[in-house]
Amino acid sequence: MTGQFELTEDQQAIQEMARRFAADAITPHAAEWDEKKILPRDTLTQAGELGFGAIYVSEEAGGIGLGRLESALIMEALAYGCPSTSAFISIHNMASWMIDCFGADAVKDKYLPSLVTMERLASYCLTEPGSGSDAAALKTRAVDKGDHWEVTGSKQFISGGGVNEIYVNMVRTGEDGPKGISCLVIEKDMEGVSFGAQEKKLGWNSQPTAALILDRVKVPKENIVGSEGQGFAIAMQGLDGGRLNIGACSLGGAQRAIDEALAYVKDRQQFGRAIADFQNTQFTLAEMAAELEAARALLYLAAAKVTAGSADKTRFAAMAKMISTETGSSVVDRALQLFGGYGYLKEYPVEKLWRDLRVHSILEGTNQIMRMIVGREMVR
Amino acid sequence: MTGQFELTEDQQAIQEMARRFAADAITPHAAEWDEKKILPRDTLTQAGELGFGAIYVSEEAGGIGLGRLESALIMEALAYGCPSTSAFISIHNMASWMIDCFGADAVKDKYLPSLVTMERLASYCLTEPGSGSDAAALKTRAVDKGDHWEVTGSKQFISGGGVNEIYVNMVRTGEDGPKGISCLVIEKDMEGVSFGAQEKKLGWNSQPTAALILDRVKVPKENIVGSEGQGFAIAMQGLDGGRLNIGACSLGGAQRAIDEALAYVKDRQQFGRAIADFQNTQFTLAEMAAELEAARALLYLAAAKVTAGSADKTRFAAMAKMISTETGSSVVDRALQLFGGYGYLKEYPVEKLWRDLRVHSILEGTNQIMRMIVGREMVR
Amino acid sequence: MTGQFELTEDQQAIQEMARRFAADAITPHAAEWDEKKILPRDTLTQAGELGFGAIYVSEEAGGIGLGRLESALIMEALAYGCPSTSAFISIHNMASWMIDCFGADAVKDKYLPSLVTMERLASYCLTEPGSGSDAAALKTRAVDKGDHWEVTGSKQFISGGGVNEIYVNMVRTGEDGPKGISCLVIEKDMEGVSFGAQEKKLGWNSQPTAALILDRVKVPKENIVGSEGQGFAIAMQGLDGGRLNIGACSLGGAQRAIDEALAYVKDRQQFGRAIADFQNTQFTLAEMAAELEAARALLYLAAAKVTAGSADKTRFAAMAKMISTETGSSVVDRALQLFGGYGYLKEYPVEKLWRDLRVHSILEGTNQIMRMIVGREMVR
Amino acid sequence: MTGQFELTEDQQAIQEMARRFAADAITPHAAEWDEKKILPRDTLTQAGELGFGAIYVSEEAGGIGLGRLESALIMEALAYGCPSTSAFISIHNMASWMIDCFGADAVKDKYLPSLVTMERLASYCLTEPGSGSDAAALKTRAVDKGDHWEVTGSKQFISGGGVNEIYVNMVRTGEDGPKGISCLVIEKDMEGVSFGAQEKKLGWNSQPTAALILDRVKVPKENIVGSEGQGFAIAMQGLDGGRLNIGACSLGGAQRAIDEALAYVKDRQQFGRAIADFQNTQFTLAEMAAELEAARALLYLAAAKVTAGSADKTRFAAMAKMISTETGSSVVDRALQLFGGYGYLKEYPVEKLWRDLRVHSILEGTNQIMRMIVGREMVR
Repeated sequence: MTGQFELTEDQQAIQEMARRFAADAITPHAAEWDEKKILPRDTLTQAGELGFGAIYVSEEAGGIGLGRLESALIMEALAYGCPSTSAFISIHNMASWMIDCFGADAVKDKYLPSLVTMERLASYCLTEPGSGSDAAALKTRAVDKGDHWEVTGSKQFISGGGVNEIYVNMVRTGEDGPKGISCLVIEKDMEGVSFGAQEKKLGWNSQPTAALILDRVKVPKENIVGSEGQGFAIAMQGLDGGRLNIGACSLGGAQRAIDEALAYVKDRQQFGRAIADFQNTQFTLAEMAAELEAARALLYLAAAKVTAGSADKTRFAAMAKMISTETGSSVVDRALQLFGGYGYLKEYPVEKLWRDLRVHSILEGTNQIMRMIVGREMVR
Repeated sequence: MTGQFELTEDQQAIQEMARRFAADAITPHAAEWDEKKILPRDTLTQAGELGFGAIYVSEEAGGIGLGRLESALIMEALAYGCPSTSAFISIHNMASWMIDCFGADAVKDKYLPSLVTMERLASYCLTEPGSGSDAAALKTRAVDKGDHWEVTGSKQFISGGGVNEIYVNMVRTGEDGPKGISCLVIEKDMEGVSFGAQEKKLGWNSQPTAALILDRVKVPKENIVGSEGQGFAIAMQGLDGGRLNIGACSLGGAQRAIDEALAYVKDRQQFGRAIADFQNTQFTLAEMAAELEAARALLYLAAAKVTAGSADKTRFAAMAKMISTETGSSVVDRALQLFGGYGYLKEYPVEKLWRDLRVHSILEGTNQIMRMIVGREMVR
Repeated sequence: MTGQFELTEDQQAIQEMARRFAADAITPHAAEWDEKKILPRDTLTQAGELGFGAIYVSEEAGGIGLGRLESALIMEALAYGCPSTSAFISIHNMASWMIDCFGADAVKDKYLPSLVTMERLASYCLTEPGSGSDAAALKTRAVDKGDHWEVTGSKQFISGGGVNEIYVNMVRTGEDGPKGISCLVIEKDMEGVSFGAQEKKLGWNSQPTAALILDRVKVPKENIVGSEGQGFAIAMQGLDGGRLNIGACSLGGAQRAIDEALAYVKDRQQFGRAIADFQNTQFTLAEMAAELEAARALLYLAAAKVTAGSADKTRFAAMAKMISTETGSSVVDRALQLFGGYGYLKEYPVEKLWRDLRVHSILEGTNQIMRMIVGREMVR
Repeated sequence: MTGQFELTEDQQAIQEMARRFAADAITPHAAEWDEKKILPRDTLTQAGELGFGAIYVSEEAGGIGLGRLESALIMEALAYGCPSTSAFISIHNMASWMIDCFGADAVKDKYLPSLVTMERLASYCLTEPGSGSDAAALKTRAVDKGDHWEVTGSKQFISGGGVNEIYVNMVRTGEDGPKGISCLVIEKDMEGVSFGAQEKKLGWNSQPTAALILDRVKVPKENIVGSEGQGFAIAMQGLDGGRLNIGACSLGGAQRAIDEALAYVKDRQQFGRAIADFQNTQFTLAEMAAELEAARALLYLAAAKVTAGSADKTRFAAMAKMISTETGSSVVDRALQLFGGYGYLKEYPVEKLWRDLRVHSILEGTNQIMRMIVGREMVR
């Protein structure tokens, strides 16, 4: 039994499991994955064994059927070790969940078994070169050829692009605008599928990123997820959870930065005493901790709302994503400063956190889109 | 039944009751109380009838025996109408609670019946001219004269000073430092009690503020609250709750500012359309709302921790006080800006909120003291 | 001879004269003017004797013919004593300058002699109830009646309204939009001129503010300033200087707040030593000073550009107004916090500065309008 | 002839020359230097031909004998192309200047001719593993062996370490504390000189960084710069200029980010129109530009003060360093956000600017040391 606003015992157990996994399997390797741009498939397989590849896939489909708060707790715990790897797992989960939640049996049976184990990895493909924040303007076209769809177009910034086996794509099957969009599962090995060059990025280096190029790819009719024209609605429903997860990745990364900075300032001496003894150090740490706790409290509340299907869930998920990612980056920035010159070295973990978290304010809808969502609803 | 991280139904009912009371009895009069510097005793008596004078006084002593979260909800709701009046009630509650929680039967029987009804009003007297943030340095001295204490000294910034009937004082009965402090109840009408001039303040005008001057006041032995030397410990225990309440007052005031600004920007036209239609207006409102929700989520969590007596309650109360009061003031400042020139006029409610909330970053321990508490615990 | 980027010796002399005047004639009285809402006419007359009523009125018209930087220096120095009084003088100067710069001899001869001495005081009337930021939408109409204009409408937020003798009005003499606007001088005593109730304001209490109501006021033809339809262009040309002056008033008020806070923290003891000895105090003061110096450097540069008629003068004046007023308010807010509870009392000068400076982010074009001006030019 | 607060024509000419050099020789190559960690010696030699290796070395010693403002203009212009390369040149200049300004003829004749041409490159060696911000605590010891110094110790974070030919070292020749420090020139090829591994850094990749390890290095007596015990004073005198230059590098990098972002937002379409047309984009750009102009105005003023030897030069240099570097990083961060996902790619120049500028808040005294310097002087 726990107090009001505290996590339940089950949630604490899940959190603990994820923390241990991160400490054992992620944290010690994250710097190397970053430096050498390694996607740690073995680690992902291990994560799959814990159910982390199908966190909110239903139990009948092989998932662990948890809610959005539990998912956030897992993401936060894994991001403590490596935000990039944690976020990569989040994307796989979003793709798996779409298939499980909206797919017919044919598509579920075909893909879910290997996705829940993370034997195969899934990418989520919405953004295009010409449509970033304005997702409904996408142009990739799927033409109905009777027994298959013929798909042509390209998808940008695809996490896992070129490596993952499965690509859950939003494509245009009908009219312009959101109602003409459907969701199709495309495999890496289908004819006509190719990839752009691997993107060189500021961070998120444990996950490959490339454009997906589709040139008259024949996609079986059964590979549709949901009905024709339902794609954009599916995409939108996936966003609340995706935003919570990204926010949670920032919380985890920022908590790590605080813990690392704390250890450093207690150890490092200047002017004859530990940096930790200076008032400015303590005030800075206090501000970092307080802002992070506020962001965390909001994110957990928002996650509970998304699980519960509350009327205000989308607004809260947007606010939580915006606050968590901005607070997270700001906290890490101050942690880096506390490290002084050492903070600028790759030998210490803070600079990687600083790079990794930066993209969280851009992904899953930029934080400007979050403001648009929240503000528009307020003035309605 | 409500979702995780939501208020319970009982809490929602209390909140609703407080909101209605504020809407009926406070909001319509707050501007007048501010302008004319009126302490609304009738309204306070009505608040007393609802139990708001004894929120966490035990039911056997006539209180309503609620927890710290419920108290915060009431303070937030009343502050929506008038932060100054709400905070005044909070101080009365702190004083009543000290007597109930730490007092022997004699002092409880003597004072609580009229305090729980708010027939008599209580001030809390800790700060002295020479000891603000450094409370343990207080100098007001109580000398044991056998059958009474003889108390001499002065207390600064006393809310209710000169008007309230009861003054719960921290005085020095022993050695220097925190361990020589005891808590005594002093009445307005005791001989030797006088008051400084009413302070002219930036805000908080519905409550009088004056120095309490004690010149060889004879205080009955039975008027001690707790045992000799326990005063500072009592003061410290009261602070967590006091900080939550002040934070809650900022949340309520800031929510009011958002609601008023929203109504204004939907109505006000510039350049041929409502201000609400401009992107900057929507983004600003979104930031205000998101930051306030994060502060609120943290404060509710901290309040639940104080009720539950969690090990980290003092740190969380300090973080919540600091975040809520700073966010509150910042939100009101942006609301004022959205009103343009009208925001600067007393005819609109925002400028009063801006003035009233400013002192919350100073009271109950300045926000610098909050940083000290949090930072010191982190580096320990 | 002074260094590059330093003030010239003449400028230093003017600055010194204004500082002395403020120290002698303004600073000692500002609190009383605020409390009792006194417009200090005697002090204004004295200011007029120094030429401060006609700073950039030409010498042949009786002014002292200085540039915009000199004007900013004077405003900054006077605002050190009282931002409200300084800003009031700025408005009078803007009105006088318009008459001198754009008026024909008839209107100049009629009004300037008594304006340069500040025997008569002038208001500037642009804003209307329905047109704040969108000044070109103004509706007050002047109909050509052959030998006079008949003017009907109302002007909002008029500094000096009800007290000043002269009102320089922007009125519609032609088509909708900016090209149908002309500038007319209206006297307080003309028939049909009346005023709304005095506004009750958050600050700026040494200057009266009221709506100007014009009901078929007969205004002599000669009272036009500039040619018909030139009004909006005149208004726009006045804005650069007005913005610099308001920014300068924020600089002066903020400098005063720093100086007062410095004196306080050196004197005030807590935890056994002066507050000034705490690292956080020193860091806070350093940030306040550094930000203020940056704002000042930008404002002086912008003022020199306006004097020189540089191509980028309007953009720089807008940037300087926005940075100076926001920095000024933020600096005063931190000074107030350094004062602790004393900062909240009217006995100390900081709370008045905090109130007075707040309107500078709203006046002469809100700081959102400044962003619009700067941003629009950047993306052009 | 230029206006007050404008650059002189000579300064504009120098600025223009540096801008052209950056556009031709630096900007096109900066991404490659960063990616491949190339120190561009050929480019540095070209810079040397323009006099940029000896900006404030006297003309008789072969330098171009300019002031601190001219130096800041050059650094700003070069940093527009590559902040890392510009800062590297700044360090070389500081070292050359120390030799020229404080050295006897012997050491000047020996080193300056090849330093002014940048044939040989110089590092500046103050920081040690145990003494960062607390420079006076340095431990590297030089023992007087009659005809030479024997130097043992290590220097941390040495820009150019392992590659540069010349190392201007602060070493302890006497008592503890600042007065026991002297300045010695050490050559890469001297026996006992070795280097730590090249540091892997977040940015600043066009310059190598390594520890300098000194093991009983025999340094000729003539290699002292200044007199024995004067080292710390020399180091301190170098800091004002070094801080201005680092601040200028942030200005240049941030200006580049604004210009790149401007071009991007005008081109990039979302929701059917250019991002530049959205109000939030324009407001964000306006804030970036205004804050950068304020920082620039302060830095130029501070540079003029350092050139003129004003009494307040150190305080102004510290304020300018702090404001410019923090504003610079904040501006680049917002530029990155305006680029959306593209901002996170190495293909675009913003992420490199974001990484490069981050260290400027740490170097040449962290910005916390700047606050210490400014705050301490204020409360004195």
